Order: sequence, then structure tokens, then C-alpha cells
Amino acid sequence: MASDAQNRGSTKAVKARGELALIEHIRRRATRATAGRSGELRLGIGDDCAILRPKPGEEILVTTDFSLEGRHFRRDWHTPESAGHRTLARGLSDLAAMGARPVAAFLSLAVPRSVALEGKWLERFLKGLLSLATRVQVPLAGGDTAEAPGAQVLADIVLLGAAPAGLALRRSGARAGDRLFCTGALGGAAAELLGLAQPGKAPAAAGQNPHPQLFPEPRLATGQALLRRRLASAAIDLSDGLSTDLRHLCEAAGIGAEVFATQVPLHPLANPHGQTKALELALNGGEDYELLFTADPGTRMPRSLGGVAVTEVGRMVAQGRGRPLVTLVEASGKRTPLKAAGWEHLR
Amino acid sequence: MASDAQNRGSTKAVKARGELALIEHIRRRATRATAGRSGELRLGIGDDCAILRPKPGEEILVTTDFSLEGRHFRRDWHTPESAGHRTLARGLSDLAAMGARPVAAFLSLAVPRSVALEGKWLERFLKGLLSLATRVQVPLAGGDTAEAPGAQVLADIVLLGAAPAGLALRRSGARAGDRLFCTGALGGAAAELLGLAQPGKAPAAAGQNPHPQLFPEPRLATGQALLRRRLASAAIDLSDGLSTDLRHLCEAAGIGAEVFATQVPLHPLANPHGQTKALELALNGGEDYELLFTADPGTRMPRSLGGVAVTEVGRMVAQGRGRPLVTLVEASGKRTPLKAAGWEHLR
Repeated sequence: MASDAQNRGSTKAVKARGELALIEHIRRRATRATAGRSGELRLGIGDDCAILRPKPGEEILVTTDFSLEGRHFRRDWHTPESAGHRTLARGLSDLAAMGARPVAAFLSLAVPRSVALEGKWLERFLKGLLSLATRVQVPLAGGDTAEAPGAQVLADIVLLGAAPAGLALRRSGARAGDRLFCTGALGGAAAELLGLAQPGKAPAAAGQNPHPQLFPEPRLATGQALLRRRLASAAIDLSDGLSTDLRHLCEAAGIGAEVFATQVPLHPLANPHGQTKALELALNGGEDYELLFTADPGTRMPRSLGGVAVTEVGRMVAQGRGRPLVTLVEASGKRTPLKAAGWEHLR
Repeated sequence: MASDAQNRGSTKAVKARGELALIEHIRRRATRATAGRSGELRLGIGDDCAILRPKPGEEILVTTDFSLEGRHFRRDWHTPESAGHRTLARGLSDLAAMGARPVAAFLSLAVPRSVALEGKWLERFLKGLLSLATRVQVPLAGGDTAEAPGAQVLADIVLLGAAPAGLALRRSGARAGDRLFCTGALGGAAAELLGLAQPGKAPAAAGQNPHPQLFPEPRLATGQALLRRRLASAAIDLSDGLSTDLRHLCEAAGIGAEVFATQVPLHPLANPHGQTKALELALNGGEDYELLFTADPGTRMPRSLGGVAVTEVGRMVAQGRGRPLVTLVEASGKRTPLKAAGWEHLR
């Protein structure tokens, strides 16, 4: 702060890339990419606040997610486009998990001076973010910019969505006896990350999403179909890993769960690691951004929803005294407690 | 990210202070401090998104603001309570500038491992933030937590507010001939910062807000009164300094402005620096979080609004070719261009 006050006589070249220039640049790019896609957005970037006019009968959903270099992405592993895409995808996935329709995104972005001056990384980051925003038709309606205090790029994404009042899918709705499902295939994001960390050993991209780590696909259409067709009793997105996110579902509903080991759909990128490691990546790897949801046993579940396969992977059970919250059931019938071993910060 | 994956066997003591423990701690503190204060908040911390049910006939306002250590506060100058207070106040001030009523706040907070382990700084930061939240009755409804990738505490605050549809005060509504007003007194935040940087030279705290830098007061009641009584044609909050924020008002409306130097209300903390320096602090210092607004010349403006003094400091004028956007008019009649010299990041 003091350095800002003292640096007010800085050169024009740097000034031209100051906060206002950065805001103006993002505003121009955002307007070109996503303008006019949402009737609910009455006022976007350029005032003290953005203004949204909600549709009658709808509720507003809000989620915020950090994307911090060194914690959520690495500039030496993820391309700038991937970092931008992932920043937005994290927020969209939270909306998908509740069945919401995205309405507006807000990006807080702090970049080290070197990144701001160079410009190209930032341009490609925005390209990755806005490309996904355009595809899912969510306008970038505001945010904040700053010079980062350290050497890392810091982003925080805010997503606002809408859903019919009272119908958003919650974590807490599961009941004992409900069947447990997931979308797509698991373990791909973690497997691709292993490849990025050791480029020589990277397996060839494969499957319906060949880059689940670099370009995860938020399951918006699936979540909205679950809500619209009243198929799910509860839902959560698989950001931290099945073992951790299923535990959240259990805790929210006060019940337990069983996972059928052989039914967990393994991503093609995970398979080359062998059966045991592939299952571990699927259960604990995280960042797949698929949906995990429960349904009443009487619900007839389609095999695919919103263009994505749906697989039954377990069931919800009453929570017994001394019984583990989540149990992994193997083909042999062997039962082992499934500990939450997915992604958690600050460990 | 890799380090997280590799560190999964870390000790229980660290684990207990992991992300989930931090979320749970914030949730408990937030629930105790601000629960049940907003009928519009249907679901708070603990699911993928928070859910708000807007009131009929109202629009939703959204603003996000970084509070990054080393950019917006310093741990060696600002107390933890001040850093927490300022984080929330920045967002509330944006709502105040548009006349909105705060509905919900979302805090994204990343702390270095050392700060998380020690615990006390974080506890006092939350105390400062939640104390203001309680006073203005805004619930902390969600957010995100992470381990900071560097040595700095990183916060991003999101504020949602509500205002009658179509009535939110905008920057763009000023017309040539409108009178220009500000609330409170200016230059205090910058003056107090000078004192924090050189503790020996700190002037005694004074005035109606004795700590404008450490504990700025967002002008929510004033903004809401301006909206309700239809007194203002345009408004902005003074976060970057009058010289910069007035320029934003001018650019949004496509007009110019004149500032009457002798009428700018100087904060008691700025006065000891002498007339010239005090005026400079008031015009360029920033972070006062007072409101700057315009009114039709026919509007009868009260001397105080929402418990804060209102002072006429200039007028809006047609923008002339070759004429400066903003002109400072001294008592002698001398006119000088007023350049935007307030706070801007990345310079």
C-alpha cells in the first residue's frame, strides 16, 4: 500500500497496464465474448455493483471458489487456457450440483507485476475462461483486479445461478435405502495430473473428455435435468474425490453409505495405472467435477442424462453405532471402511 | 497441488486445522454472530451453493473486493480486527454507493500455514469482520477457504444487496448543472495510514470516526436514504480518492466537473499536516469510504443524511473540447486541472 503511494510517479508504460487498464481490457474481452446472453443481468462491469433482476418464482444460488496458483493450478503444468477454464468450471460445477442455471460470473483476479506486464499469459487465461463462459452462456458481470502481493496468480470466481424456488438439489436430501449414482468416469483428472507432473510418462488422452484435469466439463445439463425431472433426492459435485464428497452427503443427511468397488466407473486415463491404483484415483483423486447423487429406490434412472453416462455406484444406509460412515464393498463381499482421503487444503 | 497429494500422511494436529476444520470454525462463528438476520437467506454455509429468495419487485446487487495483505492491508500496521473489518467494509461501501440494503456476504479466505496453525490472528480477523456484519445485520452465507500459496493472507469478499427494481443509484446518472456532494470528511484514512507507517508521528485520533483507516464506516444508511428519498442523480463511493472516483462519475455520464477547493471537508486527522497536504490527502488519499454523489440543482439537500454530514463540494459541467475533465477551483478563482491521482493497483 505504501509502495503504491510512493510509486505514483511511475512511468506511463506501467501506468497504461495499471488496474484501470486491466479492468478495461477484461471488460472489453468479456463484453465481446458474453454480452447480452442473460436477460437477468441489468448492469454489468463498470459501476460499484452489478445488477440482476431475478425471474419471478426463482431463487438465486451463490458460490465462490478460489483458484490459487500453487494450490489449484501450476503455471508449469497447466496451460493459461486450462487455468482460466478450470477457474470458471469450479464455480459452474457447484451450480450444476444443485441443478441451477448459471446467470452471471464475477472474477476477482490478482496477478504479479511480471505477468501483468508480459500480458500474454493473462490474455490466454481470459481466453480459456471466456471460451467456457460463452459456451454455457454466462456473462462475466464484474469482479475485482489487483497486483498480486506475491509471485502467484490469484483468482476467485463467483457464480450466481437460478433455480425454481424450493427445488434446488441439496446435500441433505438423501434417505437410507436411496440408490447412489455418479456421472461420467472418475479418476481421470488425477491420472492426467500424474502425467503433467512427469511429462515423459503421460498416457495418451482418451475417453469422452480427453483432458479431465486440464479442461473439466461442469455437468450443468445433467444437474438441470435431475432437478427438472425430479430424479435426485440429493446431489454434490465430485471436486474433492468420491471418498470425501460422499462423506459430505452422509453427514448432511445423518446416514451412511456403501460403495460397490467394481461398479465405480474408471476413466480411461486411470486404467493404465492398474486396477488398484485406478480405483484409488477414482475414489480419492478429486477434481473430476462429475456429479454424485442419490435417488429414491422407486425412481427409474435413465442410463444417461444431459449427454453423460449415469452409473449406480452404491446405496445409502442407516447409520449404525460403531459402523463406518462409508463402507467400500468389494466383489468378494469384503467390506472395508472408506476413509475421506480426497483433496483438502491446509493439510 | 502435488504437495497436497503427497502430504496426505500429515499429522493429526495439522489435519485438525485443515480446510474442513477452518470452514467449520468460520461456520460456527458466523452462525453465532449473524444467523437469522435475513429472511431472504434460505440456505447458508454447508452446501455447494447458498440460496437466496429475492423479495418481489427488488433487484439483486453484487460486488466483489479483494483484501490482499501487502496491497490492501499490512499485518504490521493493521490489527487483525481492522483487517477483518476493512475486508467487509469495502464490499458494504459498494452497496451503500448504490443505495442497496445488504442481504448476504461471502468470504473467500486463504491463510499461510503458519497463520492457520497459530490461530489467534485468524480468530481476531473473523471477530473484526463478524462484529461489523452483526452491526449491519448481514449474514455470512458462504465462501471458500484454502492454504495461501505464499506468505500473505488473501481475502476476497462478495456482497449481495437488494434495491427496488430500477432505482439503484448508478454512476451514469449525473447531468451538467447538477450539484456535487460528499458525506463526512476526507483525507482521514490516508492521514491515519501515515501515522501507522511512522508510529512516533501519529496524530491523536479525533473526529466522528477516530479511526477512518483502521475502521472505515460504510455509509449504508446514507445511501439508502438517498435512494428512498430520490435525492441523488448519481453516486459512487470514495474508495480510490475524490480525484479518481469523481473522474469515474464524469466518464460514466460523459460530462465534466468542478471541485471547489475550500469547500472540501477535511478530516481532523489530515489538518495537522497543513492546508496544502491536507487537501492533497482529501483529494487523492483514498480509502475514506465516504459517498460522492450528484443532485439536480432543484433538489433540496439536507445538511446530514443517515447521521452523517453532507457537504456541497462542486458541480457537474458540460465537457468542453480541450477542457480538463475535472477542474479544481481555488478561493482566488484560480483553476487547475485535477488529475486522477488516487489509489490504483498495478502502478
